[in-house]
Amino acid sequence: MLEELLERAEAHIPKGYDPTLYKIRHSVAHIMAQAVVERFPDAKPTIGPPIEDRFYYDFEMSKPPHEDDLAWIEDRMREIIKGRHRFEVREVTHEEALALFEDNPYKIELIEELISQNGATPLTVYQHDSFIDLCRGPHLPHTGYIKPNGIKLLSIAGAYWRGDAKRTQLTRIYGTAWKNRTQLDEFLRHIEEAKARDHRVLGRKLELFMFSDKVGPGLPMWLPAGATLRETLIDFLRNEQLRRGYEHVSAPHIGHLDLYKTSGHYPYYSDSQFPAMETHEMDGYLLKPMNCPHHVLMYAHKRRSYRDLPVKLAEFGQVYRYEQTGELGGLTRVRGFTVDDGHIFCRHDQVEEEIRDCVDLALQVLSALDFKDFSVQLSLRDPDNHEKYTGSEENWNASEEAMRRVVDEMNLDTHEELGEAAFYGPKIDFKVRDALGRSWQLGTVQLDYNLPERFDLWYTGADDQHHRPAMIHRAPFGSLERFIGVLIEHCAGAFPFWLAPEQVRVMSISERFVDYAREVLDKLQQDGLRATLDVRSEKIGYKIREAQLLKIPYMVVIGAREVEQNHISVRARSGDDLGSMSMDSFLEFIHKERFPSMNGGSD
Amino acid sequence: MLEELLERAEAHIPKGYDPTLYKIRHSVAHIMAQAVVERFPDAKPTIGPPIEDRFYYDFEMSKPPHEDDLAWIEDRMREIIKGRHRFEVREVTHEEALALFEDNPYKIELIEELISQNGATPLTVYQHDSFIDLCRGPHLPHTGYIKPNGIKLLSIAGAYWRGDAKRTQLTRIYGTAWKNRTQLDEFLRHIEEAKARDHRVLGRKLELFMFSDKVGPGLPMWLPAGATLRETLIDFLRNEQLRRGYEHVSAPHIGHLDLYKTSGHYPYYSDSQFPAMETHEMDGYLLKPMNCPHHVLMYAHKRRSYRDLPVKLAEFGQVYRYEQTGELGGLTRVRGFTVDDGHIFCRHDQVEEEIRDCVDLALQVLSALDFKDFSVQLSLRDPDNHEKYTGSEENWNASEEAMRRVVDEMNLDTHEELGEAAFYGPKIDFKVRDALGRSWQLGTVQLDYNLPERFDLWYTGADDQHHRPAMIHRAPFGSLERFIGVLIEHCAGAFPFWLAPEQVRVMSISERFVDYAREVLDKLQQDGLRATLDVRSEKIGYKIREAQLLKIPYMVVIGAREVEQNHISVRARSGDDLGSMSMDSFLEFIHKERFPSMNGGSD
Repeated sequence: MLEELLERAEAHIPKGYDPTLYKIRHSVAHIMAQAVVERFPDAKPTIGPPIEDRFYYDFEMSKPPHEDDLAWIEDRMREIIKGRHRFEVREVTHEEALALFEDNPYKIELIEELISQNGATPLTVYQHDSFIDLCRGPHLPHTGYIKPNGIKLLSIAGAYWRGDAKRTQLTRIYGTAWKNRTQLDEFLRHIEEAKARDHRVLGRKLELFMFSDKVGPGLPMWLPAGATLRETLIDFLRNEQLRRGYEHVSAPHIGHLDLYKTSGHYPYYSDSQFPAMETHEMDGYLLKPMNCPHHVLMYAHKRRSYRDLPVKLAEFGQVYRYEQTGELGGLTRVRGFTVDDGHIFCRHDQVEEEIRDCVDLALQVLSALDFKDFSVQLSLRDPDNHEKYTGSEENWNASEEAMRRVVDEMNLDTHEELGEAAFYGPKIDFKVRDALGRSWQLGTVQLDYNLPERFDLWYTGADDQHHRPAMIHRAPFGSLERFIGVLIEHCAGAFPFWLAPEQVRVMSISERFVDYAREVLDKLQQDGLRATLDVRSEKIGYKIREAQLLKIPYMVVIGAREVEQNHISVRARSGDDLGSMSMDSFLEFIHKERFPSMNGGSD
Repeated sequence: MLEELLERAEAHIPKGYDPTLYKIRHSVAHIMAQAVVERFPDAKPTIGPPIEDRFYYDFEMSKPPHEDDLAWIEDRMREIIKGRHRFEVREVTHEEALALFEDNPYKIELIEELISQNGATPLTVYQHDSFIDLCRGPHLPHTGYIKPNGIKLLSIAGAYWRGDAKRTQLTRIYGTAWKNRTQLDEFLRHIEEAKARDHRVLGRKLELFMFSDKVGPGLPMWLPAGATLRETLIDFLRNEQLRRGYEHVSAPHIGHLDLYKTSGHYPYYSDSQFPAMETHEMDGYLLKPMNCPHHVLMYAHKRRSYRDLPVKLAEFGQVYRYEQTGELGGLTRVRGFTVDDGHIFCRHDQVEEEIRDCVDLALQVLSALDFKDFSVQLSLRDPDNHEKYTGSEENWNASEEAMRRVVDEMNLDTHEELGEAAFYGPKIDFKVRDALGRSWQLGTVQLDYNLPERFDLWYTGADDQHHRPAMIHRAPFGSLERFIGVLIEHCAGAFPFWLAPEQVRVMSISERFVDYAREVLDKLQQDGLRATLDVRSEKIGYKIREAQLLKIPYMVVIGAREVEQNHISVRARSGDDLGSMSMDSFLEFIHKERFPSMNGGSD
């Protein structure tokens, strides 16, 4: 009987969650609830589950605990742990359950719901020491399995009972628990690190972007520093694309509904689109959810011969999706974003070469931004269900093979996913691991056998007949907004020199050196550097600290000695003092940092 | 009595139209109608007025005249002219008029309308030779006042009776008439020239932009060459703005309706806006009709001190207006366009200096694009009605004076227009005359005392109090689309070298020289030039002609002699053969053309 109860409890551990950690956190949540109730006898425990890396427990309380209450609770939890109390599980009847929790309306509500939902499932309670809770488990055998220095309370927040804003506001206490102190310390370091790198926080601190309710959620506005960063990324990719034979185009941000009916994007995806602007003309206009249909029209605007292919059209095109806004103030989920979109129209015998070039470009982008750890997902057809894909068997076989050959040749860390191809073509996605070990999907290369069909695209072959071109969608950054969000966290706001919105700040030690500082600034600016001047009458230490907080790569300090020797003193944002040098030496010193690596990732 | 009739007739000549030319064209229209009716006895004349530089007459005809009919008509008109027939005017009663034109339902309709509208006005008819027409005049005394070689029929078009697409389709014959042959020839040269410079025609020929019904009227899509042109203009101005202390920002293309209610742009201008996208959130979103409200939010996102001013935010922002589309396929009237928008937030004591810089920048832009002939309109308050303007009397006086001082100092050809200021502030507009002598309004500088008030903008003064900043809107290009449309016609598609989408085309005389041609291309591209290669197996003359039609500034021809001497042969698009030279000499030769003049227009 007990065996069966414990087994059933184990089944509640989510897939992928370390079972020991799950049980530790679940048990520590009960221990915390016991301590809370001891400190606040009128507190009513509601629910308290383990979540990723953490646990919480929600209480009805007349007022939230103070700092010193939390300290007391944490100490008391360690005492309880040391008591080696067993977690006793037993099945209870409905009546017994209702009686046990009769003074806790939240538990009563849960019990009644469980009864009405599934009368057949027995209810269980877990008890340790003085604390008993309605709970399906699982827990550790006894509190002695927990290391007292492996636990920590983290924060307090408000939470509505059952997540419903119309019901009681509860007090949620978050904590964490690990197998030992080493694990706990690592986790705490990690959250400190993540907090310091949070792109929403850094975005505000470095004045990169802002949001406004008057504009709308998920619609970032790029402030000067952020706009410079964005333009510098765009210029970098634009130049690289020109070198690779792309032609840049520019399309409006709207199109007649008819365009999206032809492309098939409307009405099928209308849930994630901003509603149409209703006009008398042709059903109205749609704010563009993607750039492809406009580019397809540009391909089709004139006759193309087999000798003209590939035609490679690129645009940094802003698109809009009416999606759930997600985390407020962040760039990783937005309603307006810029796709570094490129569409290649080519002959089928050119597909492999073009895919190779797309992958090479994506790798070059990752390398220029110092993303060293990434893998590639190759999404192919479901082998048992070829008929659900559009496009000929022959073309699919050839393009899947071509993709496989390209990633093999380049020795990329690749995993193939069968059945993950889009219905219109196979694709290659780049998954990038950032400095915190988190994985992000960024760039993509996709074949498309659908749009050339829907728009009846063709070129004249050597045989003077019409042929359907292949089409490739590719975006090395993916969404610029998302990419920048990830990049900010990856480099903690300390952008590579070539990308830093402000590259050098020249600062004077006193007013006597302002003229010389201004000369130095002029020279830097004439050399094309983004340099600024700080000649405020503040202490030099203050100026340096401020520039460091802004993560400006180099600080040039001008005092009496510098003026005398016609030199400059240089400090790096890392804190390194690079000493005194001539202007020319400084320019030579930073020369190699001024431009992103122009090698393909595969070189 | 006759005197009075003639006097009344003269009053119908539009203001600004040369009275002699008006009467010549009006008379020639009657003469043409006579000849048409002689050639096509069943043709029914309807109306036939003089218009700018031309006249036309609309007829109901079973089929439009052929080329040889027009020749016959033109010859016959010269005969009639030589007859020195008098134009006799007389007043007719309503009954007489109805009887005279009883077999012409169009004239009957007009007569009945005139009777019902204004029974008191007497009707007049004009007769010369055999032709009589219901007409209010005026005409020449007799046909001998017309020079037979000063007239010409121009074209045939369809036109609906009274411009109503539901009524009969008529045949419109256009002609022109001048005081003499010299004037006529000049006019004909002018329209040939205008036709050759038409930006809609050149836009297609040079593949600069396209339109598509699937996207919508008035929404230009920039093809590669046009997008390059547009980006080059943007880069030029961006660099210049950076030098002048502007900071570039980037905002989304939509905003909550609430934003435009605060700014006052909605609902007052909703007629010229795309309809809102209706969502549950805050009344929905508007496609942005202007960039100012987003920039105002960016100014307001942090505290500003008097020491931080001026704050100069700039963006090449695409905006959308749901206006009548006007001429199809043109850039001068569009529904989506890019404003080179800049907003300066400054202290009132900085206004004059900022206006000076704005005017200087506008002049620099005009000078870089070779617009030499322009005037300035200074729009001031209506002196009798100061209360209809927002903002203090003191600020208005100061800013009007400042504008006047700036244009005086710079010795600009200025005319002041009282009562033409916007309700929110005075402005300076640049009116540019193009190579064909047509006038266009391009750049603008406007003060705004309204938005800072509506958005409650402030900065902290030296006195630690809140102060309202002044705001200046300025756009040196105005709309990039419009500017480019005018520029195309101004330079007939032969863009200055620095702006040409394709700057140099390298072409080989035969296949033997392809390798060397490719080397030359590489060197040009490495030097940052937009160069292309034409190594098709076509005759060199054909390649040169094609490049000339595309108005590519320089053609580099590679043959045996060039390979031998390690030289290149250079031709200009004008047709000039610049001869054989080394690569270095060529680069030196074009050096000064590579960048637009960076002098302020006032220098």
